[in-house]
Amino acid sequence: MKFLSYTHEGRDSFGVLRDDQTIVDLGSRLGAQYPTLLQLVRKDGWEAARKVVQAARVGDFKEAEIEYLPLYLEPVTIHCVGLNYAAHAAEAGHKPPEYPRTFVKIPAALVAHGQDFEKPTLSPEYDFEGEIAVILSKDARNIKAKDAAQYIAGYTCFMDGSVRDYQFQRTLDQGKNFYRSSSIGPCLVTADEVGPLDKLTITTKVAGEVMQNAAFETMIFSIPKLIEYISAFTALSAGDVIATGTPEGVGFSRKPPRFLQSGEIVEVIVDRVGLLRNKVV
Amino acid sequence: MKFLSYTHEGRDSFGVLRDDQTIVDLGSRLGAQYPTLLQLVRKDGWEAARKVVQAARVGDFKEAEIEYLPLYLEPVTIHCVGLNYAAHAAEAGHKPPEYPRTFVKIPAALVAHGQDFEKPTLSPEYDFEGEIAVILSKDARNIKAKDAAQYIAGYTCFMDGSVRDYQFQRTLDQGKNFYRSSSIGPCLVTADEVGPLDKLTITTKVAGEVMQNAAFETMIFSIPKLIEYISAFTALSAGDVIATGTPEGVGFSRKPPRFLQSGEIVEVIVDRVGLLRNKVV
Repeated sequence: MKFLSYTHEGRDSFGVLRDDQTIVDLGSRLGAQYPTLLQLVRKDGWEAARKVVQAARVGDFKEAEIEYLPLYLEPVTIHCVGLNYAAHAAEAGHKPPEYPRTFVKIPAALVAHGQDFEKPTLSPEYDFEGEIAVILSKDARNIKAKDAAQYIAGYTCFMDGSVRDYQFQRTLDQGKNFYRSSSIGPCLVTADEVGPLDKLTITTKVAGEVMQNAAFETMIFSIPKLIEYISAFTALSAGDVIATGTPEGVGFSRKPPRFLQSGEIVEVIVDRVGLLRNKVV
Repeated sequence: MKFLSYTHEGRDSFGVLRDDQTIVDLGSRLGAQYPTLLQLVRKDGWEAARKVVQAARVGDFKEAEIEYLPLYLEPVTIHCVGLNYAAHAAEAGHKPPEYPRTFVKIPAALVAHGQDFEKPTLSPEYDFEGEIAVILSKDARNIKAKDAAQYIAGYTCFMDGSVRDYQFQRTLDQGKNFYRSSSIGPCLVTADEVGPLDKLTITTKVAGEVMQNAAFETMIFSIPKLIEYISAFTALSAGDVIATGTPEGVGFSRKPPRFLQSGEIVEVIVDRVGLLRNKVV
């Protein structure tokens, strides 16, 4: 199933996107028990959602009638991973790392699918990084990679917007947390619907041009290994997000560098997961 | 006023700590409008709280009868600042920085006043950093330092637990976000009650021994300048926290290094703000 949060006729809700591009509203049916998508994730409401979707013979309204909200209305912890593809590490001037290089993305940095990015005024070096993000289904502490699959709720697309001069000359956290520089969505697609990631690919386009294209099998630290690593030094909660790193082709490594400009559309496309689109303004 | 979140006879609530060490419970009186302390901060409930506290001639119960909860029950964004005292920058081998070196602390890293720290099993280099933290009263974006005072709700004590090998050899965010390695509290003390910070001091004790002692006037970037800097690259929300950095005397800079051991008590004492105490287990 593809879960999303949205606003429809002035009402914030969440639901499931059907293959016919209509939406089954869950907020009106399950809201007493699960007021938000994050609460559904945390309270294991998958089966309740599945029953509603199966019982609904048609969607309540069309996807075109809603506006996407950020995947969650409440804050969660978002861990991001740097240099997790060898070709990207090389273009950034690094060897493949010996451990996952994680950092944190704060809610203020994120917009929803379809909302505008805010081009930074403090820097001209606003760059794109297309990624797949994994969403935890359960609290996780000291989980081994071999057991990690049962902690995965699903996946979504992620644009890890990066302001390079701040990232490299000030702190990683600053460069990665400019206001409305990044995005997540459009949907949480459950792991059963996505299937094995090995043969799937990610593509990032800027102004229609393909900038990044890679298979997930080239990831250095697999998603189970990332869950093992992060849950060993800290605790993950149900609903938390791990953005798994970007492949080669980012703007600052190009000759000449290719930074984002006002008016450009950024698209992150992940096989079986979706297309995340935002405009820079 | 000194605001705190706590649990009393199995009920989570929030209230105000009086000078006679009793507590006026606000959850039972204002909970319909402000279900939590964070909601009171966000919805500007200060005057409502003041009226309740003035009308109460005695506290509802003694401080000794409650257990402190983390200042907030809901997650907020916590920005921390590194190297914000010249003597600490020097002991860490750095020049005073030209800009605030910020990073993010996640909720999983924090415990409340009186709760136990969890000594990391992955590293022997678990270190203390006593700090004062400022709490925002309003959403803040592109705020100038001269206007920052009106965005300050108050202050609290902060222990920025730091796992040094992870911090220096892996990523800053990892070293700063070990599970239950840090603490915040005990109370949010309103700015009017604390007054000017210039002549106030901070003291950190480990196992009763003074490890850090400094005046806030030696801070490199003042709290108004930190609000200006952070609100320029991202957005701050009401309730968000900025931990302002630690003075000299931390464990890893000592000869020999002085890391935290099981059973030791860490105390962060800030004039007019309070005493934050936690045990390492």
